[in-house]
Amino acid sequence: MTSFRIKTRNRAEFVEITAQVRAAVKDAKLTDGACIVYCPHTTAAITVQENADPDVVHDVLLWLNQHIPKDVSGFRHAEGNSDSHIKSSLVGSSATVLVNEGDLVLGTWQGIYFCEFDGPRERTVIVQMVGR
Amino acid sequence: MTSFRIKTRNRAEFVEITAQVRAAVKDAKLTDGACIVYCPHTTAAITVQENADPDVVHDVLLWLNQHIPKDVSGFRHAEGNSDSHIKSSLVGSSATVLVNEGDLVLGTWQGIYFCEFDGPRERTVIVQMVGR
Amino acid sequence: MTSFRIKTRNRAEFVEITAQVRAAVKDAKLTDGACIVYCPHTTAAITVQENADPDVVHDVLLWLNQHIPKDVSGFRHAEGNSDSHIKSSLVGSSATVLVNEGDLVLGTWQGIYFCEFDGPRERTVIVQMVGR
Repeated sequence: MTSFRIKTRNRAEFVEITAQVRAAVKDAKLTDGACIVYCPHTTAAITVQENADPDVVHDVLLWLNQHIPKDVSGFRHAEGNSDSHIKSSLVGSSATVLVNEGDLVLGTWQGIYFCEFDGPRERTVIVQMVGR
Repeated sequence: MTSFRIKTRNRAEFVEITAQVRAAVKDAKLTDGACIVYCPHTTAAITVQENADPDVVHDVLLWLNQHIPKDVSGFRHAEGNSDSHIKSSLVGSSATVLVNEGDLVLGTWQGIYFCEFDGPRERTVIVQMVGR
Repeated sequence: MTSFRIKTRNRAEFVEITAQVRAAVKDAKLTDGACIVYCPHTTAAITVQENADPDVVHDVLLWLNQHIPKDVSGFRHAEGNSDSHIKSSLVGSSATVLVNEGDLVLGTWQGIYFCEFDGPRERTVIVQMVGR
């Protein structure tokens, strides 16, 4: 198991972490199995998404922010970031990425993203290897 | 692999199951790896979410119920619980939680929740260990 | 690790792949662990959902298409399939399914689905085994 830190700069943003995850897999000398990219925060998430055109993650965030606004009548959580928690449970606290022949198995357009929903903050990402 | 039963009391509610999952990991003497917390039902789900302030899960449920109502024009499923199935696919049928040094790796505010979307019912949660 | 190809016939549809995943697990002679069913595409996803009544997946798709429409003011991605990418991140790029005594562990009504959100296309599904 290993971890790394990232700094986010906005309340909501997707930060690509493919390079850090790939380095963790190579350091661990995992040959065949999977790595679990885990977010230990409840107002952030991990997703696999297109990394070729940055407009894709822009549009994903736009939809999330339009449909899960910060203030909703009936929200009780006093911190005022219930929207961030909802986005976290919908996108998910982890992504499982396959490993074969010592490297990540990703589609041509796929990158791994840390999804910040309540930044800017300093955040931790944990990567665990399973396999051999 | 192990499993346990829980009873839910409302049509929609989040039941914290962190203690049961931790006990399963300790019983299995898993040292390093991950456990997959799996929901074998299609109208329920598993998520990792804040367990410090109960208002957080209240607000997540509020949003889900507002945006995925029970009756939608065009729904065909005769059982009338299509909303429960939709919530299940969005939140997800399992959560993968890391294990290190024989214990769950969770962020300070994280708990594991069984998400009931079509209760009250008696439900099963399955926990599978991977690693060593 | 193994993979198989499927052909989708509509822009959005759920294709059941339980039989192919079960065959992959049996071919790999995995006894105890889990298989990760992974989608290497960013406009598709994998979910576990009811396979008894086809109206269930109809209704899940209906909700997704109503709430995540193709054209939204503010979308920038020039390919015009931002909705497909959003659905992919919400449903998720993989599903982890448990394996016990050499077979998939699924609830009575559960099937594994490839979720096409930008078809029709020829697609790949990757299945990786973890365990023993």
